Amino acid sequence: MDAIIISVGNELTAGQTVDTNTAWLSQRLAEIGAHVTLHVTVADEVAPLEREIRRACELADVVLITGGLGHTEDDLTREALATVLGVGLELNERCLERIRAYFTQRQRPMPQANTGQAMFPIGSTPIDNTCGTAPGIRAAFGRATIYVMPGVPREMQVMYERDVGPELQGRAAGAVILARTIQTFGAGESEIGERIRDLMSRGRNPTVGTTAQQAVIGVRIHAAGAGRTEAEHLLERTAAEIKSRLGPLVFGEDDDTLWSVVTRQLIAAGKKLSTAESCTGGLIAASITDTPGSSACFIDGVVTYSNAAKTRLLAVPADLIAAHGAVSRPVAEAMAHNCRRLSGSDYAISVTGIAGPSGGTPEKPVGLVYIGLADGGRCDVHEVRLGSFLTRSEIRDRARKYALNLLRLRLMGR
Amino acid sequence: MDAIIISVGNELTAGQTVDTNTAWLSQRLAEIGAHVTLHVTVADEVAPLEREIRRACELADVVLITGGLGHTEDDLTREALATVLGVGLELNERCLERIRAYFTQRQRPMPQANTGQAMFPIGSTPIDNTCGTAPGIRAAFGRATIYVMPGVPREMQVMYERDVGPELQGRAAGAVILARTIQTFGAGESEIGERIRDLMSRGRNPTVGTTAQQAVIGVRIHAAGAGRTEAEHLLERTAAEIKSRLGPLVFGEDDDTLWSVVTRQLIAAGKKLSTAESCTGGLIAASITDTPGSSACFIDGVVTYSNAAKTRLLAVPADLIAAHGAVSRPVAEAMAHNCRRLSGSDYAISVTGIAGPSGGTPEKPVGLVYIGLADGGRCDVHEVRLGSFLTRSEIRDRARKYALNLLRLRLMGR
Repeated sequence: MDAIIISVGNELTAGQTVDTNTAWLSQRLAEIGAHVTLHVTVADEVAPLEREIRRACELADVVLITGGLGHTEDDLTREALATVLGVGLELNERCLERIRAYFTQRQRPMPQANTGQAMFPIGSTPIDNTCGTAPGIRAAFGRATIYVMPGVPREMQVMYERDVGPELQGRAAGAVILARTIQTFGAGESEIGERIRDLMSRGRNPTVGTTAQQAVIGVRIHAAGAGRTEAEHLLERTAAEIKSRLGPLVFGEDDDTLWSVVTRQLIAAGKKLSTAESCTGGLIAASITDTPGSSACFIDGVVTYSNAAKTRLLAVPADLIAAHGAVSRPVAEAMAHNCRRLSGSDYAISVTGIAGPSGGTPEKPVGLVYIGLADGGRCDVHEVRLGSFLTRSEIRDRARKYALNLLRLRLMGR
Repeated sequence: MDAIIISVGNELTAGQTVDTNTAWLSQRLAEIGAHVTLHVTVADEVAPLEREIRRACELADVVLITGGLGHTEDDLTREALATVLGVGLELNERCLERIRAYFTQRQRPMPQANTGQAMFPIGSTPIDNTCGTAPGIRAAFGRATIYVMPGVPREMQVMYERDVGPELQGRAAGAVILARTIQTFGAGESEIGERIRDLMSRGRNPTVGTTAQQAVIGVRIHAAGAGRTEAEHLLERTAAEIKSRLGPLVFGEDDDTLWSVVTRQLIAAGKKLSTAESCTGGLIAASITDTPGSSACFIDGVVTYSNAAKTRLLAVPADLIAAHGAVSRPVAEAMAHNCRRLSGSDYAISVTGIAGPSGGTPEKPVGLVYIGLADGGRCDVHEVRLGSFLTRSEIRDRARKYALNLLRLRLMGR
């Protein structure tokens, strides 16, 4: 089953908005074995829109259209589709009722313009929109089935999951393609590549590739199977193989982050964390507390940006800072050690470094970061040189990830 | 001058990667008065690629192609273009030398496969790639000029800015379109809309529209002029009008954030800030310190997640917490007041609230946040009810923005 996705909107052709709907839909279609051959983005104008819909219906079995279903004069997808089908638009009373109800629920009057969203090309059928006012449209032209969905991502996604996807599921005869990403930290893309080179060979199924995102190397697996079960089986087997080869470099899958994983580890182990941050400025505390339930494992954190603060909040001796500088191994150690002692936590992380762009010296260049990790037993300090080619934000982000990865490994007993 | 952008890559049609190149190029083209009529994304296969290039050359004066210039068997843009032009590929010695030099500089041997990147359709001309190995290609077919650029965003952007853009500049006879976004916080999209309704009327130049992004309402201006000067003039005039109408709701333009603006304000005023965060978990401190030079205005921050931490680090009386609860007006006030006093800063921000998803009660629902702002003179506490329909991350983000906006207004003397 060949599929073409058409995105509609001046904001897209003008580059004011990046189209994320198309990638999302392409993934969903791949999962049910549909083959996406083309993406097309066209402005809110009837003629080109009509032209693209006609062409797509000649090239594909399924044409998914997103956008242009709003209530403004710019929203012309309905009109263009009606022109393609050679029919007029008619009012669908049931849809109009639903739109009215939408506004009633929110105690707002329904603008007259929204009536237009209840107009449908004669012969087409509406698709309910359960989280917005614009219903979708289902129609047939030539060899193709056409589904029009709203451009608002959430409305489109819910409509696809609820109605469009299930309808297509049965029709797609092609291979089911399932995707998964194994997330790793601690090795470069080339080193990861070396370790799984054979799994990455062309033509293999599942296909395996690596992607680097801000020092997190993801290993992407795409498994094709005659059915979902076969694809899942293949996916599982390759995922297991990759995990066994990369060992502790693997911290999670898909949407896992180092902080969500570490937070889960801490909660599971019933351990408490406190943080003492300088150059990361609270980034580590903010990351940990982003996870629901983190109050169970996070006691407190301090952002000791000034030297005075390091002394006041962490009891780091002023002369220690004077002797070695705020960005030094002894200060990082004192920060972590005292942070844990003062807050009574099980683990304390400390970070002090030079995030730049200024403040670097030949001995202590931008990107030099000391990370301390203290538990009841010991306090390790790691010196990290992140390289001055990184931006300030990147250096802060890397320092955060490096610190959280150290804690992750410690919690794994390494 | 009509332009069509073609993106090439299986990772795009499969939805594994979101295409950001096209939006970026569309903006650049609009700025020089080119009219982007269509975006097309096609997989790495010669036949469909050839078909789309042919069609684009019939519909547009300029065809920009990104991707498929790599050195793997998947990279077929060169071949497809040669087929369209009806010519073969020939080696360009100069380009091969540049590619060799690229590897020599990095003390790496040049893989044989990279030789392919020096192959060009006969009659086409190379475009230098100053930050990667793949040169671009300039060719002509039918009415159109074709520019092929690498898919790697940075390589593409540099190549466009350096060679392609300047070449097109002269040719585009259409209106120059310049864009700017006025960033506001503190009012809803509808309220903003009411105040500038007349400026948003259809057909007006500049066009004005609003976009809502996590409570920040951006007012987008697109000014069309015969030349850059005229467009700039129109843009300035409308921007000034919008700013005067929205007054203190406006915090910046384009890439400005509430934190970058507040940090600039503090540095300019020579004032120091300290933060006392509970539910935002360090987000405010992390935001402020993301700005270079923030050490000049940020002393320290505490993330007092537990009640004990509020007492230990901020001297909030335990019985005060017991009496009113950690999420309460008195506790927010004590946090801000003591934070300022203890750190010796000019301003202190405190945040305590219920970020959810759990922890809400009928009296204190998820989304209830108290924000304290203390300076030498007084300490205000604001109660914010963010609504339980927001996610945990959204509630934390809104609380951060609300707090920083209060400080922004205070620094403006309001």
